[in-house]
Amino acid sequence: MQTRITVATTGPGLYEITDEAMAFVREAGVETGLLTLFVRHTSCSLLIQENADPDVRRDLDAFFRRLAPRSDDPSMRWVVHTTEGPDDMPAHIRAMLTGVSLSIPVLDGAMRLGTWQGIYVAEHRNRPHRREIALHFLGSIG
Amino acid sequence: MQTRITVATTGPGLYEITDEAMAFVREAGVETGLLTLFVRHTSCSLLIQENADPDVRRDLDAFFRRLAPRSDDPSMRWVVHTTEGPDDMPAHIRAMLTGVSLSIPVLDGAMRLGTWQGIYVAEHRNRPHRREIALHFLGSIG
Amino acid sequence: MQTRITVATTGPGLYEITDEAMAFVREAGVETGLLTLFVRHTSCSLLIQENADPDVRRDLDAFFRRLAPRSDDPSMRWVVHTTEGPDDMPAHIRAMLTGVSLSIPVLDGAMRLGTWQGIYVAEHRNRPHRREIALHFLGSIG
Repeated sequence: MQTRITVATTGPGLYEITDEAMAFVREAGVETGLLTLFVRHTSCSLLIQENADPDVRRDLDAFFRRLAPRSDDPSMRWVVHTTEGPDDMPAHIRAMLTGVSLSIPVLDGAMRLGTWQGIYVAEHRNRPHRREIALHFLGSIG
Repeated sequence: MQTRITVATTGPGLYEITDEAMAFVREAGVETGLLTLFVRHTSCSLLIQENADPDVRRDLDAFFRRLAPRSDDPSMRWVVHTTEGPDDMPAHIRAMLTGVSLSIPVLDGAMRLGTWQGIYVAEHRNRPHRREIALHFLGSIG
Repeated sequence: MQTRITVATTGPGLYEITDEAMAFVREAGVETGLLTLFVRHTSCSLLIQENADPDVRRDLDAFFRRLAPRSDDPSMRWVVHTTEGPDDMPAHIRAMLTGVSLSIPVLDGAMRLGTWQGIYVAEHRNRPHRREIALHFLGSIG
């Protein structure tokens, strides 16, 4: 049981897709099994983080801007891959550190997320992008 | 086939759960398939690392304390989310970098871990917590 | 449906295994399901990154050399685990940040990788190693 969703991003930050994942689980009538999310790009990523205080997402993004700044920042003078713009190589670095797939157990028709967990596409590039995420369920269908 | 385990943590560090995962595989009588572990929190994480020398785990923890120190550290003055204490935002950062799910193939009733691989809950907060991990097996049962 | 592949590495860098994974999917005759890759070591890791410009892989490797240098670097004087050489503890750190497993949906006999996505073993140690990766498919077989 597979589908895909597309997220329009408008610059670096976390874009929540928890509702879209829930809708897939509900509409597919899945009962118990494993939901996999997979993002088909190399300069954005997927992660599960706190969905309560928006400051958490802002700080996570600020952390990445410090850990891997734009390649025109003096601290990044070692970067070779600059042809796609100064935001491209740090985007690959940030994506490498967070990853492209998530595995979430489903029980009795519901993802087993914790109370404060939300699912996010982490966009690392500056310009608007359309990001494609494959959703895949394996298990029993009611 | 699902269960959950709870781990009582008492401050930052790696807490091994390899035995608990093995017990689930054995007691469920699973044969061949995929074991998924999923931690239902946003300030701790799951990882697989060396189970031989305890110094490795100590150094991994020390690395995180340097990469993302407490938010009352001068280098972290940019942090906005401080309401839950100076150890909260670095905990979210560290959890984001290590992730909340693990996928481990199972063959002939045994997880295909390497010789030196152990499964750990990485606790990133200071106070004691009870951490809940969902274990999920998909495959054939003997 | 499981197999394993072995990759001979000759020092730090990204070693592509996309073709090997494709061969497994093709030869096993799988149709739709989930492919899991799992590396059975603690000083190398698995990741999906850009397969077009080799400079991206070179820069990713350079980033890791700066984030977690050899333990004989002055900035790493805090490292305790040095018995296996100055490249060992940074290898564990880099492996922790990238992870040991990947989950890739398969549809109509093909992995749903994006256009620019390649699958890589990230080697973090200096000496040559033989790295073992478990490949596991769960789903329907044509």
